[in-house]
Amino acid sequence: MGELEIIRIIERFLGTDPRTVVGFGDDVSAVRLVKHQTAVLKTDMLVGSTDIPPGMSMRQAARKAVVANVSDLAAKGSRPIAGLVALGLPSRLTKKDVMEIAAGLGGGAKEYGFPLVGGDTNESNDLVISIALFALMDERRMVLRSGARVGDIVAVTSGFGDAAAGLKALLDGRVRPDRLPHALAEAVYHPHAELELGLRLASSGALTAAIDSSDGLAWSLHELSKRSKVGIQVQHLPISKAAKDFALSYGYNATDLALYGGEEYNLIITIKPKQLRVAQRAARGRLKTIGVVTPRARGVRLVKNEHEVKIAMKGWEHFRGQR
Amino acid sequence: MGELEIIRIIERFLGTDPRTVVGFGDDVSAVRLVKHQTAVLKTDMLVGSTDIPPGMSMRQAARKAVVANVSDLAAKGSRPIAGLVALGLPSRLTKKDVMEIAAGLGGGAKEYGFPLVGGDTNESNDLVISIALFALMDERRMVLRSGARVGDIVAVTSGFGDAAAGLKALLDGRVRPDRLPHALAEAVYHPHAELELGLRLASSGALTAAIDSSDGLAWSLHELSKRSKVGIQVQHLPISKAAKDFALSYGYNATDLALYGGEEYNLIITIKPKQLRVAQRAARGRLKTIGVVTPRARGVRLVKNEHEVKIAMKGWEHFRGQR
Repeated sequence: MGELEIIRIIERFLGTDPRTVVGFGDDVSAVRLVKHQTAVLKTDMLVGSTDIPPGMSMRQAARKAVVANVSDLAAKGSRPIAGLVALGLPSRLTKKDVMEIAAGLGGGAKEYGFPLVGGDTNESNDLVISIALFALMDERRMVLRSGARVGDIVAVTSGFGDAAAGLKALLDGRVRPDRLPHALAEAVYHPHAELELGLRLASSGALTAAIDSSDGLAWSLHELSKRSKVGIQVQHLPISKAAKDFALSYGYNATDLALYGGEEYNLIITIKPKQLRVAQRAARGRLKTIGVVTPRARGVRLVKNEHEVKIAMKGWEHFRGQR
Repeated sequence: MGELEIIRIIERFLGTDPRTVVGFGDDVSAVRLVKHQTAVLKTDMLVGSTDIPPGMSMRQAARKAVVANVSDLAAKGSRPIAGLVALGLPSRLTKKDVMEIAAGLGGGAKEYGFPLVGGDTNESNDLVISIALFALMDERRMVLRSGARVGDIVAVTSGFGDAAAGLKALLDGRVRPDRLPHALAEAVYHPHAELELGLRLASSGALTAAIDSSDGLAWSLHELSKRSKVGIQVQHLPISKAAKDFALSYGYNATDLALYGGEEYNLIITIKPKQLRVAQRAARGRLKTIGVVTPRARGVRLVKNEHEVKIAMKGWEHFRGQR
């Protein structure tokens, strides 16, 4: 069963509730408390057998579990107030492993300025780090996946491909963890969530939609397209310099690394056409414009040598399967 | 490593934060929002390899994961507003399994009147159902583990031993799941969280402390003792009729079943001595008084044949290990 089918089944059985402002299908969920005030809720689980690449320490894995959750709040412009952590720990773990996990969790939460206030500990066959975050937000300020309109500018907060290049080379056994180029090693082992940037962008009022890129650039563009009922034309593919260099040296396809990667915590946003400067100022010049929002019928496309080609709805899972 | 040692390590690395009203070490956590208003947060994880007894369906397991979380809020007098669910699903699960899990989650949330508004789905080697609940509460109304005072009355909302008797017989291979006496089967496969009862008790103002009994009667009494810095004298051990009968038929020790069981979702409370009637009215007569709060030096003890014996700080894990 694919993940999409599983999510569809779960959504169907969970039904809907009038208090739900944002349910499944966006980066976070939100429930109405009073008037426009909502509780923002997010959970994301890290699983040892599938989410920890070669060379990643327990401390890095635990920290990354925090980063993955924070990144989703960052995309919506929401600052975490507190978090919980539920752990499934295999009995083979040593005291040092547990201390590393605790240090990674504590360090990650501290980086993003919120406390982990409670949790649950269990024995399990697979290492599981399940984090849940809580925030408060005026629902009118939340930047959803569904707000993009034809004519909006599409932009990203960073180049793509570093994490995919690093992960693919590690999983292919082409490079030892300690030989990865610095930018790739950072992307794989020590990623960052764009919390302050996401908060500034949301506050600027210039955005119409946003999504965190952790499912990959192609997948995330398709999500924006689906939820906003628009097409997207990518004119400049944002491939990072390090990924381009690495692809050249090791015979990988840099375009594929940038499009069909994942585990990369950039923000992908759409901006009202007249407010690009406002957004760019909020981002302190860090935005790279990559394309425009088009009518839905045109789909998600990449301009290449003056022709348009379809960008497939593929994510990291599919890409990884190709090795 | 024991669970207590793991929790100690994690607490140490996570540090403290001035906004935290209730951290690790109570049934729920709470962070201050404005004035006395707090966000109540709870997470509890169900793990397939250790938490699903023989004969339990996927639907029952998923529902029980909800019940376990609700029971902790019930003990504090807090009504859940919304929840999240993060799943780790082994690849061997069928579509029917996933539908059963979704139905159990949806059914459980509906029983207790809150929506599951979001989640995360992953592949893992062990089945993992990690639930997080959110509520709002005035911190002055929350019934903590730490409020018991010498002279208070100790009471429970139901007899103990049904779940332990059922689980032990199943794990010992003494009884087939479909041959369990009804009360034991209900306790194992279809437990209930005392949400309405917990809310009424907390609203009565008669309680000084409360804890959910899911770690077992003995363990929970020791927790109340430790957190409130008091002793507890149990004068009437609340053994359920069904557990007593079953113990007699199958040669188990009924006292051990009642004390050292677990996975039973009763509430254990302490009541201001002059307000027993108020509490009993709030509980609609369902409270069984079992003892009194004593000075700390006297420890947690059971009156037996006019003598006092120590109640060991043992929980279900230890008890299960004896089989």
